[in-house]
Amino acid sequence: MPNSRSNGHSGPPGPAATISAIAAEIGVSVPTVSKVLNGRADVAPDTRARVEEALARHRYKRRPRRTAAPGPPLVDLVFHEMDSAWSIEIIRGVGTAAAAAGVGVVLSELGGEHHPRQEWLDAVLARRPQGVILVLSTLAPEQQHQLESRSIPFVVVDTLGELPTGVPTVGSNNWGGGLAATRHLLGLGHRRIAVISGQEDVLCSRARIDGFRSAHDEAGERVDPSLIRHGDFSVDGGYRHGKDLLARPDRPTAVFAGNDMQALGVLRAARELGLDVPRDLSVVGYDDLPLAGWTGPALTTVDQQLRTMAGTATTMVLALARGDDPPLRRIELATELVVRESTAPPRE
Amino acid sequence: MPNSRSNGHSGPPGPAATISAIAAEIGVSVPTVSKVLNGRADVAPDTRARVEEALARHRYKRRPRRTAAPGPPLVDLVFHEMDSAWSIEIIRGVGTAAAAAGVGVVLSELGGEHHPRQEWLDAVLARRPQGVILVLSTLAPEQQHQLESRSIPFVVVDTLGELPTGVPTVGSNNWGGGLAATRHLLGLGHRRIAVISGQEDVLCSRARIDGFRSAHDEAGERVDPSLIRHGDFSVDGGYRHGKDLLARPDRPTAVFAGNDMQALGVLRAARELGLDVPRDLSVVGYDDLPLAGWTGPALTTVDQQLRTMAGTATTMVLALARGDDPPLRRIELATELVVRESTAPPRE
Repeated sequence: MPNSRSNGHSGPPGPAATISAIAAEIGVSVPTVSKVLNGRADVAPDTRARVEEALARHRYKRRPRRTAAPGPPLVDLVFHEMDSAWSIEIIRGVGTAAAAAGVGVVLSELGGEHHPRQEWLDAVLARRPQGVILVLSTLAPEQQHQLESRSIPFVVVDTLGELPTGVPTVGSNNWGGGLAATRHLLGLGHRRIAVISGQEDVLCSRARIDGFRSAHDEAGERVDPSLIRHGDFSVDGGYRHGKDLLARPDRPTAVFAGNDMQALGVLRAARELGLDVPRDLSVVGYDDLPLAGWTGPALTTVDQQLRTMAGTATTMVLALARGDDPPLRRIELATELVVRESTAPPRE
Repeated sequence: MPNSRSNGHSGPPGPAATISAIAAEIGVSVPTVSKVLNGRADVAPDTRARVEEALARHRYKRRPRRTAAPGPPLVDLVFHEMDSAWSIEIIRGVGTAAAAAGVGVVLSELGGEHHPRQEWLDAVLARRPQGVILVLSTLAPEQQHQLESRSIPFVVVDTLGELPTGVPTVGSNNWGGGLAATRHLLGLGHRRIAVISGQEDVLCSRARIDGFRSAHDEAGERVDPSLIRHGDFSVDGGYRHGKDLLARPDRPTAVFAGNDMQALGVLRAARELGLDVPRDLSVVGYDDLPLAGWTGPALTTVDQQLRTMAGTATTMVLALARGDDPPLRRIELATELVVRESTAPPRE
């Protein structure tokens, strides 16, 4: 991609718009455009909006770092929410890869929002990291452009939804994981299997459920639609759906719980209803967090290699920062079933 | 404290040593001293050692930030190891307080070492954060001086051992927590109570055990020394000691597990031995991690306000960075017992 080009909407400046041409066009000073580019707060909101609009319109892009002065050796890692041991796995994966490259990690949390706020982005622009790693969150198109115009690359880990073409992502094969978990339960002889996945509008939730369906299809088994549930990947979500599913007279003999936190909730629901796992109920998690080895009973789960996923995203964003063109920009890691104590054949 | 002073060991330069005086004294250039101060790698190791020695000898201290150019709005948060949901609570506490002050958090992990390596410190010196927060780790005296000479303040969270006078710390009342946990078990009627604390050379481990002893003393009960164990605050440590304690013919009727992760290990040991918690065995944790509400059974535990502790450390280090003199430099937060399902009177 050229350093700057016109998208054809507009008149001058032409395909090689510079800061000074943009400043002249909208009638502000060159330092004002620079301030906006560097995320400085001391620019009036309407001026700033005009500058951003002109930068976006001309698809302005700061010279890549190999020619410009390098920013500090930092990457930004941002979570939509850090709510479980899941986050620790990601942090450690990024931390190890970043340390190997001599780069520090700046951590932030969006408090449950999937789109970062402008204040967060301003702080990022001001510190000019080598790159940004977004976990379960995405940027609005204008935010994407703000990073692109400063030549700050970003990579998304474990995508929540369809991303525009060209956005680099590292995820895992959620469909394959759902397939493997369900094949395991069918192979043990279960025929009434429930699934509790994450939010319905989240792509990885839907992929895991589709894997669940495919395993049934290949075994020639029907799926009871009332056994398909959407939680929110929290312990509480697993607990509520678990209570509801297990209190039914035609309760399932196995639950694929969507992730390890929800599996913890299902284990609790089973305990409260006096059901023994795995004698009365088999439970499969997803993630293979360290706690999966310590629950009572230890969880059969799907290892989605969270640390490797996070490390791969880090390596990719640092390669983009150097101006390299990584051979793969959309990576899906394979998943693996880990069989422990929470699954067994159904009782006769 | 004056910006620079002599400690009296040595001759010139005098109490107001400047970079140029130090450079002249040891026969290097002023830029060389500056490079060392800024953590730059391009200084020969022996030159660097001589510069650090001279800085330490003169107790050189960079002008505080209110007069110097401010560093970037960052604080460094460093863990000796991020190994459980415990770390998430600290990260969130620091993150919230830092975000409120408009400051980013750079996270690092020492891979289990309690003293940071020089490479880590060099990276910190190079990025010139507002301050450093050390979790369960301490600096060697020469490392402390390296931060002090750059006017980068630091605060230690949850001290592992005796720190030199003057090092700011935020911890919790470990002794009071041990006392409350044990009083609760004695109050339920338990008389054979075991304790599994952390490593013996760790101050908070010893304080919790001393609280355990004091509760016995005030109840007029003897402590069986063979029921006092030292784990390592990991699930595995709790499991191994739990197995050993519960397999004894004179097994305890209650275990104060030292932290929630060890309590998880004790629950697992009990399950494997066919003991019901709390009918056959009461278990108390420590930390009140989110998972304590979800274990089977939910854990009675000691809330040590990890998020508040981390937030207080952040506020303190930022105050020190502004040149303020916080009224308290050694803070201990109160702990609180949270009673859930894992404790009950012993069986007759």
